[in-house]
Amino acid sequence: MGKRYLTTISKEEAIRRVLKAIMPLEAHEEIPVPACPGRVTSKPVFAARSNPPFTSAAMDGYAVSFEATLDADLGSPVTLIRGEYAVLVNTGDPLPRTMNAVIMVEEVEEKGPEIVIRKPASLWQNVRLTGEDIIEGDMLFPVNYRLGILDVGLLLAAGIRTLKAVKKPRLLIIPTGQELVDIYEQPDLEVLPHRLIDFNSYTLMALGREMGFEVTKTGIARDNEHLRAVLREYIPAQDVLVINAGSSAGTEDFTETVIREFGELVFHGVAMMPGKPTIFGLIEGKPVFGIPGYPVSAAISFKTFLKVVYERLCGSYTSERSVPCVTPYKLPSSIGVEEVLRVRLMARNGVYYAYPLPRGAGVFSSLSRADALVTIPENVEGYDEGTVLPAHLLRPEDELQHRLNIVGSHDLSLDVLRDMIKTRFPAMDLISAHVGSMSGISAMQKGIADLVTTHILDEQELVYNIPAIKKYLAGRPALLVYITKRIQGLLVAKGNPLGITGVDDLTRHEVRFVNRQFGSGTRILLDMMLKERRIDPRSIRGYDREEPTHTAAAILVKEGIADAGLAIHAVSRSFSLDFIPLMEEEYDLLVTKEFSEDPRFSLLMELLASPEFASRLSRLGGYTTKDSGKIKYVNG
Amino acid sequence: MGKRYLTTISKEEAIRRVLKAIMPLEAHEEIPVPACPGRVTSKPVFAARSNPPFTSAAMDGYAVSFEATLDADLGSPVTLIRGEYAVLVNTGDPLPRTMNAVIMVEEVEEKGPEIVIRKPASLWQNVRLTGEDIIEGDMLFPVNYRLGILDVGLLLAAGIRTLKAVKKPRLLIIPTGQELVDIYEQPDLEVLPHRLIDFNSYTLMALGREMGFEVTKTGIARDNEHLRAVLREYIPAQDVLVINAGSSAGTEDFTETVIREFGELVFHGVAMMPGKPTIFGLIEGKPVFGIPGYPVSAAISFKTFLKVVYERLCGSYTSERSVPCVTPYKLPSSIGVEEVLRVRLMARNGVYYAYPLPRGAGVFSSLSRADALVTIPENVEGYDEGTVLPAHLLRPEDELQHRLNIVGSHDLSLDVLRDMIKTRFPAMDLISAHVGSMSGISAMQKGIADLVTTHILDEQELVYNIPAIKKYLAGRPALLVYITKRIQGLLVAKGNPLGITGVDDLTRHEVRFVNRQFGSGTRILLDMMLKERRIDPRSIRGYDREEPTHTAAAILVKEGIADAGLAIHAVSRSFSLDFIPLMEEEYDLLVTKEFSEDPRFSLLMELLASPEFASRLSRLGGYTTKDSGKIKYVNG
Repeated sequence: MGKRYLTTISKEEAIRRVLKAIMPLEAHEEIPVPACPGRVTSKPVFAARSNPPFTSAAMDGYAVSFEATLDADLGSPVTLIRGEYAVLVNTGDPLPRTMNAVIMVEEVEEKGPEIVIRKPASLWQNVRLTGEDIIEGDMLFPVNYRLGILDVGLLLAAGIRTLKAVKKPRLLIIPTGQELVDIYEQPDLEVLPHRLIDFNSYTLMALGREMGFEVTKTGIARDNEHLRAVLREYIPAQDVLVINAGSSAGTEDFTETVIREFGELVFHGVAMMPGKPTIFGLIEGKPVFGIPGYPVSAAISFKTFLKVVYERLCGSYTSERSVPCVTPYKLPSSIGVEEVLRVRLMARNGVYYAYPLPRGAGVFSSLSRADALVTIPENVEGYDEGTVLPAHLLRPEDELQHRLNIVGSHDLSLDVLRDMIKTRFPAMDLISAHVGSMSGISAMQKGIADLVTTHILDEQELVYNIPAIKKYLAGRPALLVYITKRIQGLLVAKGNPLGITGVDDLTRHEVRFVNRQFGSGTRILLDMMLKERRIDPRSIRGYDREEPTHTAAAILVKEGIADAGLAIHAVSRSFSLDFIPLMEEEYDLLVTKEFSEDPRFSLLMELLASPEFASRLSRLGGYTTKDSGKIKYVNG
Repeated sequence: MGKRYLTTISKEEAIRRVLKAIMPLEAHEEIPVPACPGRVTSKPVFAARSNPPFTSAAMDGYAVSFEATLDADLGSPVTLIRGEYAVLVNTGDPLPRTMNAVIMVEEVEEKGPEIVIRKPASLWQNVRLTGEDIIEGDMLFPVNYRLGILDVGLLLAAGIRTLKAVKKPRLLIIPTGQELVDIYEQPDLEVLPHRLIDFNSYTLMALGREMGFEVTKTGIARDNEHLRAVLREYIPAQDVLVINAGSSAGTEDFTETVIREFGELVFHGVAMMPGKPTIFGLIEGKPVFGIPGYPVSAAISFKTFLKVVYERLCGSYTSERSVPCVTPYKLPSSIGVEEVLRVRLMARNGVYYAYPLPRGAGVFSSLSRADALVTIPENVEGYDEGTVLPAHLLRPEDELQHRLNIVGSHDLSLDVLRDMIKTRFPAMDLISAHVGSMSGISAMQKGIADLVTTHILDEQELVYNIPAIKKYLAGRPALLVYITKRIQGLLVAKGNPLGITGVDDLTRHEVRFVNRQFGSGTRILLDMMLKERRIDPRSIRGYDREEPTHTAAAILVKEGIADAGLAIHAVSRSFSLDFIPLMEEEYDLLVTKEFSEDPRFSLLMELLASPEFASRLSRLGGYTTKDSGKIKYVNG
């Protein structure tokens, strides 16, 4: 067992080998014009017809020859015989061949069989000439041009019904792995407690379709024999194959073995992270990828290599946009591996700060929550704070600009606020980076955060937040606003089987504790209580196990992996756990003076003070909202 | 006849009235997760299951309790009984409840019924904990959230098969107009010489789908009675109706009349251009738009109002991106009307210059060719050269960055070059703004163009281009490169019915001439020949009729609208016209020194010198390519 990588080559070398191994598709097809957006021309397209197709009146009026009107003026009008020298036309009517101008009906006097004109007309006045827009025979689009929505009308106007486009390359996705289950085939997941949902192949299917592939997904190949059968059945009708390993290491060897049996292995192992165990080979001359099983690795490896394959196969390219971003703090990385970070982009005064999301290749939510990808190349040992880097956007930039960005400590009240905001203002959003209270204050100190959530108790004064603000943000104008008071305490299993009554019990040998991350207000509170009681943290089993949110701590207790965790009251209720209250703390919002003049701040204050906010928090439990939305302290 | 606008209100007021008249849709539906990209949540979505769903081994090895290994070291190993205190697990296997660490198989010694451990394990080593990624009950997405592709995997991983989404609003598009014909229903357009192809409704259908509507298109309503019947049939099952007028003015009144009959008119006429004759009303409480018939007006009016309607109906928003751009010259506009310009964005040193495309509302190609829209507000009388404005992108920004941008005079050889470039490098493109030779040189003088095509003859020296460059670009380092020599002459109808032999014949009374635009090399050539021969331009009929390209001039001669036009030889061949050669001229490429160091310049030189370029031009006729791709003159 264990992974045997043949070689680990660089990403650039891997892309070179992929490009070398495959050839553009020859296949093209005739498609109707309304189906053309997103498709690529396989021949230049020439206009079959001019637009407008004939010379016509651009106004309702009389068609005349402008030469006949040259002597007209107010005092000595010109009269023309209707029907012969002046022909009544409606907008869009073809212009009679002998005429070259149209006089608006309001500007002539109709007098029996004649019209009277008191102003000379000019050549082509109120006339739309043939081909003003498109001229028959014009090249509308060159070969290898990716057509867009607005090209539909142009093509039809030029008399084109169908055009030759490169055929969509056919991509087959094969999920593999004994432990996988298809959520749509298994109505009750509870009966299969140790099976994993196959979500990778659905993600790859959607990504492949977006790139422009014609995608087919097979059922889950449960073993080597099954995979062989799938390959034999599907290879002839496909252009590219993707085998997606399960999450166990064994299945990757399994993919390599089968590629070697059916064809030729080109590489296994690329110096990029996530995405290292990517496999590439050829079966019957067709490209075959072994895409890693960890979901983030799968998506990034797929985007990296299949985009290149798509471009190569159909002679076009897909676009990807990047914007500059700034690192809010030091981002470490290892030499020798290209690392792709998923980041939240938080805009402040026109600058994007990139807050990394959790790095693990299994943390799929980081990809869905990410705004962009930031790449740290193979030969770089991370970036210092304040480095400017390109961020490859995963969502439209607009979405980033209508956000309230909060940095600091986590609380369920932020979810409630977010939901209230999105209900009232669908285009807005509230995004929070859970970095803990102290890191939030530090971000404001550096001038890169406007909104910080915090709950730090000062040991001497026994006051929340204000002493920390005075200390770390001296002279910086800012407001402190009440969000809520909330009860912190110990989460224990239903019925409190170990009879825990307070922090003193955490030192008991059989009690497994789960801690919160360093810098979080909850952690500071715990450390203070331990110090007060002269308890050595090393005597607590699990003191080193840090979790970033209250809910993350709760799940460990719920699952029986830990016996006690420090968290807010509300999560005990949603997880049906018992709760030993320790202390009421103040969870506040710190706002720069600058931002307090933004209309979005007034909105926040209004929502915090609303009866809806109070009633939703009271339903969660353990919250006091008497002062929510009031200003507590003015700094600087 | 004539248009009767009830009132012309501002765009802001029009949008306010639309928003006031309509309510969010109540309808939502259950959709399967793989269909969610682009859809909007109608309820917050909570995780039904944690991911990973159980605590498992992250490596192949032995599951142990880390406490049992604490005393192990190289000299005094710990031995554990297999099966009871050390359980063999594969990656992904659930971790036995009493265990809390996994030791890699390579790190233990298997010895009969026991394993030997020489290094202590740490808590949770090589273990993936339940809910590391997603915790059951977490809010994954708030209400009114537009889901993306990467959300598919997250939702499935959280055990969600289907979710509640806002129903796609149903949009009906009704094309109207006697003069229209559906290109897919009429196999031979030649039998209907004065009918116009309905391309608007196909464009609106594609735009509507992109916004997120469920779109239906009816057949063409040919008259009032037909339109009434269509409305009666379709209204009940639709959420929004769009009646697209034909291009004749009459049909707009027609739409207004029918809206008044069936419901209530809210406005007719908006102070924006294009898009002024937009109509809005309500029938049975449902929004109905009368979208103008001119194609650019139709697309811009539709994008402006239907986007607002979509957002309002389904509580989400569609995104639209803008980038800053700079006006390369003065852009005039009228006070009192908001004008939307279609522009080409030409990037130079990271700055976009916005070159306006033809303004007419009938010039649909301007929309397909446009990179962005620039709005000149109602109360602004145009912009000066060098003004920075927001440009609303119509295509991915990436596409703008892989372009060779040429400003100057037009020639068919640019189409050939473009096709050769797109064939070899699908991601690249060659874009030309046809502003004439002098405007091209002036753009380089201002430092906003790198590549200029020019053919300006100096009257004194009888030399092409070099004297003009010396005069206007004194001291500015640049290269002049041969593209081709080409024959300019007079285009006349097949058989030369008027017996035209040279420019002297242009003064004959029966000869209708078509001129090229001021500043074009062809125009300068004509004016010089006239001066030489002491011919008064005013004696030439049609001297004032200016066309921007050679082909545009040719079509007027072909159609019998003009009898003679000055153009290059090649177009006479493609339009089957007769040609009276006047002079061979030099069509050259002027390149800044800066750009001559760009690898794309070497590519251009290589293509110009290639046998393919020579043979394709010789097939067009009238070209000499002996020196193509050679440097002719070095300036500055």
